[in-house]
Amino acid sequence: MQHAVVMAGGSGTRFWPESRRRRPKQLLPITGGRPMLAETVARLDGLVPAERTWVVTNAEQLAGAREACPDLPAENLLAEPAARNTAPCIGLAATVIAARDPEAVMAVLPADHLVKPTAEFQRALRAGFAAAATPGRLVTFGIPPTYPATGYGYIRSGAAMGEFEGIPAHRVDAFTEKPDAERAAAMLASGDHLWNSGIFVWRADSILGAIARHMPELAAGLERIRGALGGDDFAAVLDEVYPNLPAVPVDVGVMEKADDVVVLATPFHWSDVGSWRSLYDELVEEAGGDVAVFPNGGELVTEDARGVLAYSQEPQTIAVIGLDDVVVVRTPDAILVASRERSEDVKKVVERLRAAGREDLL
Amino acid sequence: MQHAVVMAGGSGTRFWPESRRRRPKQLLPITGGRPMLAETVARLDGLVPAERTWVVTNAEQLAGAREACPDLPAENLLAEPAARNTAPCIGLAATVIAARDPEAVMAVLPADHLVKPTAEFQRALRAGFAAAATPGRLVTFGIPPTYPATGYGYIRSGAAMGEFEGIPAHRVDAFTEKPDAERAAAMLASGDHLWNSGIFVWRADSILGAIARHMPELAAGLERIRGALGGDDFAAVLDEVYPNLPAVPVDVGVMEKADDVVVLATPFHWSDVGSWRSLYDELVEEAGGDVAVFPNGGELVTEDARGVLAYSQEPQTIAVIGLDDVVVVRTPDAILVASRERSEDVKKVVERLRAAGREDLL
Repeated sequence: MQHAVVMAGGSGTRFWPESRRRRPKQLLPITGGRPMLAETVARLDGLVPAERTWVVTNAEQLAGAREACPDLPAENLLAEPAARNTAPCIGLAATVIAARDPEAVMAVLPADHLVKPTAEFQRALRAGFAAAATPGRLVTFGIPPTYPATGYGYIRSGAAMGEFEGIPAHRVDAFTEKPDAERAAAMLASGDHLWNSGIFVWRADSILGAIARHMPELAAGLERIRGALGGDDFAAVLDEVYPNLPAVPVDVGVMEKADDVVVLATPFHWSDVGSWRSLYDELVEEAGGDVAVFPNGGELVTEDARGVLAYSQEPQTIAVIGLDDVVVVRTPDAILVASRERSEDVKKVVERLRAAGREDLL
Repeated sequence: MQHAVVMAGGSGTRFWPESRRRRPKQLLPITGGRPMLAETVARLDGLVPAERTWVVTNAEQLAGAREACPDLPAENLLAEPAARNTAPCIGLAATVIAARDPEAVMAVLPADHLVKPTAEFQRALRAGFAAAATPGRLVTFGIPPTYPATGYGYIRSGAAMGEFEGIPAHRVDAFTEKPDAERAAAMLASGDHLWNSGIFVWRADSILGAIARHMPELAAGLERIRGALGGDDFAAVLDEVYPNLPAVPVDVGVMEKADDVVVLATPFHWSDVGSWRSLYDELVEEAGGDVAVFPNGGELVTEDARGVLAYSQEPQTIAVIGLDDVVVVRTPDAILVASRERSEDVKKVVERLRAAGREDLL
């Protein structure tokens, strides 16, 4: 059967002051009325039912994740005892799913990406499920690059492997970590490179087999967890084993080493919405326009100001006078006012607040 | 005896969103920990006692004024039934004071000006009381101009009239309304013009005599009010008479026409703090510095930003990134973010909110 695993354990600071430790990006409604996690789960409607949709999060965010996904069975929310990167996270999900459904094919989806339209996303996922039906095969999605990004990993696509749902499939020749500007430009020019989206599809037994081959230490840990499944000591075993699993990305630990890896180029619009600036770029309707995100009411009033992003969860009037291209974000205890070009520098502010011991603001 | 009358009925919108109809500038602690009205009353400490300090405000602001001046006798707060400019306001105060103290000399002080240091202010006021002791004389204070302001009225000083407390007094030759730029430059260059401060000192019977001579209609109304003083129908008479008094500034209705008018040049630092920009100018300690006004706690965090004015009554962290010379003001329901040079344009925002029927924000 087809399953979906939404990875929702991230803890970004790039949407400070709105994002906090207990309220990371995937739990925020930054792109619309619902938390991004809820949007991600809703995007599966009609393709993967709730009982086969899984969310992997962590203890700190579990309550928020439950609130964002009220329709999922409670046992489908898995909480990592510690953050160990994506290979253990995916391995845990695959272990739990395979125990319930040995023939499972599972899609792995980051909880905090912007993807549209849903119909194209579902077509791509159907293609992924079809391509991944072959035992042992790992399917990844690549984003057609639009600029020489240095912030993403790249995938070099090789020999054609036919088509699924009208989407051509290619064997993966290589994974490349985030490149420098020169290599990024070369890869963009090559025409055969795609951005690594972090979206995967595979049979649960395919990924577990690849983990056994390429990450035996992880496989051993997962085996202990599998042995405790359904038992009274499951939580205790997970707490003991999980924090010691190798903290490695699945790309590095498994994908780069595996033999039968296939890439599908995504036919949908995609953004990882990595900053306020990127959120503005995603939401603005015409060049220089304003973007006002007031999910609970509120308004932006401008006087000789263009290109403003205004954001507040609480109903609020935000007035901007005589300033172009600024970001204004209001939360109950903090306000961010930034040049849009510089909004990535919130991380510097967050670092300073951390250094000053302002845990209340983190 | 010496009295002081603080005029606190103004309703400015220039400090929106902090200033509102019921919370005008004089009731805001914009220059420090206390409302400007409270600062103005405190500036009289040791010179004029509470029982001879009077505040004229209006019904809408009466509660706020009481709160700002807890040490004044309740009956010393007079509420205008309607805003009728300064001549009726001063006439009302003089009428009430003269009835209690026929020999009263009264200083008239706007509630929302920044004045420092207090010692020099008190020296000037002592000089005013001395100069105004002569029956029939009206004393006004002039601010030595520092630039060709078009936003103030001017006073031309004439013949020397001796010194009071070391401050030279001059006969007033003329009052000039707010000039255009050319006339302002000429008056600044003349060396014998001062800005009209709106601060006056006179015997109560002197100003009432001048009103009787130059504003007989006002005098007749004040006479009706005087007749009702101490009676059960005082409030009813005030409500009936006051709204029909001529709405004229005392400068225009009385000062320009009176014979014995004397001006003292102020020896203190003065600002009418007419905008967020002006507040920044008053509070900044070095060129390009930041000004953070958080009377109840809070902090400004800047990252590559200079010349910021941050203001919030509620404890708050305000972070500004990559923007110079901006004003950020937070209130519970509205935020202002403005280029400092353009902060006067809040009035345009207020006009638009009024046109949109947003009484909740006014």
